[in-house]
Order: sequence, then structure tokens, then C-alpha cells
Amino acid sequence: MSLKYAVIGSGALGGFYGGKLAHAGKDVRFLFHNDYQFVVDNGLKVDSVTGNFHLANVRAYRSTADMPKADVVLVCLKTTNNHLLKTLLPSILHSDSVIVLIQNGLGVEADVALDFPQQPIAGGLAFICSNKIGDGHIAHLDYGKLNIGVFQGDINSVLEQIKADFAEAGVPTEVSPDLMQARWQKLVWNIPYNGMTVVLNTTTDRLMRDASTRQLSYELMLEVVTGARACGIEVKESFADKMMELTDSMTPYAPSMKLDFDHKRPMEIEYIYTRPVKTALKAGYNMKKVAMLEFQLRFIQSGLSER
Amino acid sequence: MSLKYAVIGSGALGGFYGGKLAHAGKDVRFLFHNDYQFVVDNGLKVDSVTGNFHLANVRAYRSTADMPKADVVLVCLKTTNNHLLKTLLPSILHSDSVIVLIQNGLGVEADVALDFPQQPIAGGLAFICSNKIGDGHIAHLDYGKLNIGVFQGDINSVLEQIKADFAEAGVPTEVSPDLMQARWQKLVWNIPYNGMTVVLNTTTDRLMRDASTRQLSYELMLEVVTGARACGIEVKESFADKMMELTDSMTPYAPSMKLDFDHKRPMEIEYIYTRPVKTALKAGYNMKKVAMLEFQLRFIQSGLSER
Repeated sequence: MSLKYAVIGSGALGGFYGGKLAHAGKDVRFLFHNDYQFVVDNGLKVDSVTGNFHLANVRAYRSTADMPKADVVLVCLKTTNNHLLKTLLPSILHSDSVIVLIQNGLGVEADVALDFPQQPIAGGLAFICSNKIGDGHIAHLDYGKLNIGVFQGDINSVLEQIKADFAEAGVPTEVSPDLMQARWQKLVWNIPYNGMTVVLNTTTDRLMRDASTRQLSYELMLEVVTGARACGIEVKESFADKMMELTDSMTPYAPSMKLDFDHKRPMEIEYIYTRPVKTALKAGYNMKKVAMLEFQLRFIQSGLSER
Repeated sequence: MSLKYAVIGSGALGGFYGGKLAHAGKDVRFLFHNDYQFVVDNGLKVDSVTGNFHLANVRAYRSTADMPKADVVLVCLKTTNNHLLKTLLPSILHSDSVIVLIQNGLGVEADVALDFPQQPIAGGLAFICSNKIGDGHIAHLDYGKLNIGVFQGDINSVLEQIKADFAEAGVPTEVSPDLMQARWQKLVWNIPYNGMTVVLNTTTDRLMRDASTRQLSYELMLEVVTGARACGIEVKESFADKMMELTDSMTPYAPSMKLDFDHKRPMEIEYIYTRPVKTALKAGYNMKKVAMLEFQLRFIQSGLSER
């Protein structure tokens, strides 16, 4: 039985991953906001390093009230919009629908589970560099791997089926045996570079070139590793070294929070900083430097900075 | 016997304090750099909240080689120029000349003592808001108290005489019984606000208005208090509360490091951040957040930030 997909938030992530599935012939319905009419008229265009494509006929919706129920709901919103899910999702869920939160940070599944306690929920981590560059127009610049894992529900077989669908669509996907470990590991990279590129208004390569911020990046990573371990999540210190090497090998890069900041969109401070800090603190470890970065970002978000 | 003064660095600080002494009829010689000819031709002008004045005939020099020996050398350079002292000072010192370093931070006296091991040395802390606003033109906006203390030498009586001279000149001056305590106490204010106004490109009042940076300011203060105590310097935690109240009561303020940054001058990172961090670390306490601020400032100083 083939899965029916709904994509909530059809931007840089949803447009790409949903677009790939639809392009491979899967049953995918998209929720659009501002782009709805444009996509109905012109379709969805994806410029990808793995091959450009255009979807002429997109199953586009402007409201979930009009969408049929889905087996898999790929939530690709920024976490700053997660308060909308309580309203957006109920009408498209049947009792076995799997909500997959393809989002950054820590604690998103737990929060969504408060509103949907009986619903199968999974998390997804996107290792991708993609941007929305115009109406119905996505640019996929690099990477693309997806890592999904169970949060609640007996859904391993569904996740394997999702993985198979993505494989057919040309998206390398892993089912992680430990979603929280995957989330903490991603934080080892996300925490230093998202915040520091905003606070210091720069790119990853410059942070790595200067001896002070290079060391600070590493120290922030080690704090996250120690925070994870305090929470009983196994992340090796050597993982920080791997992330340093990875960043050295990357082209100059502005992480998603820097792009949000540059485009005056709200930053995902809550799930990338506040929740990890609180979670580690509750487990007995104070990630002091991460907390300092969080406070600096909150100040910048407040609009009191002259930038 | 009246003291002969030399002022090294006749800018916002030296121009004001030396100017006040000269205005009161004391024997003061000034070393000028760019302003020399202007001051010879036009004198020195001080616009002060405590009363404007103009010195028509200033004993101005462009080189210490031409200056007579002085009993008291008021060093009012930015610490980023302290490498010049080794060359500037010897010709104006006799064996009892007191070098008074009216400068910010920690460790300035110890470093100068390496080059002048036999010379009497004192430190001075200026609690003042003043700026150089033009050639030979100083604006004194607020405060003005001077706090001096012995670093090396049997010079208590000279410091009392300096205090008396300043009193005559209308500058409230204290002789501190413990210079290092005075320096650490001043760091309790200087460390949070100098660095944070630069990194977050803002003013003290905005840092106090936002809940996150307000808390971060206080946490940085407590780290400095703990650092001081690790070094055997008695600073009470309540001193941090006093500094918070002081800052709340101040008009919006850009500390000296923010002014240096805005005018693209080098910042005094070494003595305000690096030395305190190293000193506390040696005594067994890691001021983690202060160290993070130091690294962020070093990155900004490197010019790699797009600001």
C-alpha cells in the first residue's frame, strides 16, 4: 500500500523533499501559504545540484481543511510557527497518521506530543543546504540527506517505507535507532555556528579562520557533547573533532539562523538553544557558553540591537 | 615642595586631568602627538560639566626627549599603546619619579614594572565620562573621580600630595589602600558593558532593558566577583548588585571600548579581558563567560566580522 503524504510548510525544506517525492510519482499534497496561487498557475520549480526539475501539476492547498487525510505528515515549518500545528493538523490526521517533524533543535516532538498524545510522531533531521529563492522556486545547493527516527508509536515499519519512498526519489535517508542522539549530534554543529554567525555577523569559514572563534566553536561543541552525556545520550568527544573537520571542508556557509536573521525572520532560539540548555541543566549540567549565546541571540531578536 | 607633573597621552583623560591641574596653577607638561602644533597655537580647551575653561599657554611637547624630568608621570595612554612606554619614559624619570598608570584593566602595572623594576609605580582608575571632540578640545560629560593606589615603592606620601593637588584642582581623588581590589571592582562594571556593547552593538541602557542581557550582565559581574575572590581579593557579591543599580541610573552610555570600536581604534582587550581571565584561571577559577566575550571581541578586532 502506497503512502499518502502531506507537506506542511512548502518552503526550502518542504518544497525540496516533497517536490522530490512528487517528482518520483508519489502521492503528495502541499500546503502553501503566500505561494499558493503562483504554484497553482505555474507549478513548483526546483533547481538542484542533483538535477533541476519542474512540477507542472502540484496538488496545492491553501488550507488543511480542504486536504484529504494523509498517512504521513511532513512538517517542514520553521519551529517558530509550531504553535500553528494544533490548528493545522487535526483535519488531515487519521489514527495511524505519522507526524514527521523535519525541524531543528530539541524538544519539538515532546511539545507536539502534548497536543497529539495518541498520534504516532517521528522526528526528522535534514542535512541540506537549500533556500527558497522565489515564488514556487527552490534552490538546492548542497547535501540533502535525511535522518528520521521514532519519537512515539509503533511506527518502525512506516519509517522504513518512508525511507524506501525517499530512496526511489533520490534522497538518501536513514532511520536512526535513537532520535534524541541524532538531535543532540546535530546540535553539536548547529549550536556554535547558527548563533555565532548571527552574533558576530559572519560566515562559518571566517569563524574557523580566526584562532579565538575557532577555539570558541570547539568549546561550544564540547559543552553540547557534555550536555548530551549528562542527559544519558552517548555522543563521543571525537564527534566534535569530526564537526570541526566538516566545517573546515565546507564552502563559506550561512546557517539557517543567519539567513533568518538577514531576512528579518524570527530565529529558532527556543528549540536550538533554550530547550537544550534547560534539558542539560535539569540533568545537572550548566552549558554556560551556550546559555550566553542564547541570551545574546534573544537580545538581538528583541530588536534592541542597532543592527 | 610642589610636584612637577608630566602627562603622557593628552587625550580624553590626560587632557582633562592634566588640564585641571594646570588650570589650578600646578606645574604640568603635556606630551601631545597629533595635536601638538594646534595646542601650541591655540591652547587647550576643556568643556566640562563642572565648568568650562581654556588654557592659553600649555607646556606642550611633541617628544619626551625635550621634556624636563617629572616627579609624577601621569600615563593616560590607551593600554594598546603601552609598548611605547619603554621608549617614552626613561628620559623624564629621576629615581623617585612616580609613574601613575591611569588606565583600565588588570596587569598594566606589573607589565610596566618589568621594564622599570626600580621605579615607584602607582595605578589610577578614572571614573569619568570624557571624550576628545577635536584638536586640543576635550568634552567632560559626567563624573570625574580618580582613585589611585600604590603598586610598588614607598610612595604613600606622594600619592597623598597628588590627591591634595587634585583636590585643589577640583578633582575628587581617593588613595585606595588596595589597588588590586580597586582594579577588580572596576572590572565588575567594565567587563560586561565594554564587551557587550561592542558585540551586540548597543548601549548600556538597552542591555539593561532586555531581560536576557540584563541577566547576562549580572552573571558576567558575578563571574568577575568570583574571579577576584579566587585571587584572594575581597569583593562582595553585593557589589554586583550595586553596579546593576548604578547602570540603571546612568544615562544611555557607550563605554570606552565601544567608542574605540566605533572609531575603528584598537580595543583594550588584553588588559580588560585576557589578563583577568588568565589571572583567575591561574588562581583556579575559569571565568567561562568572560572568556567567551574575550574571544568574540578578538574576532571582531581581527576584522573578519562584516561590521
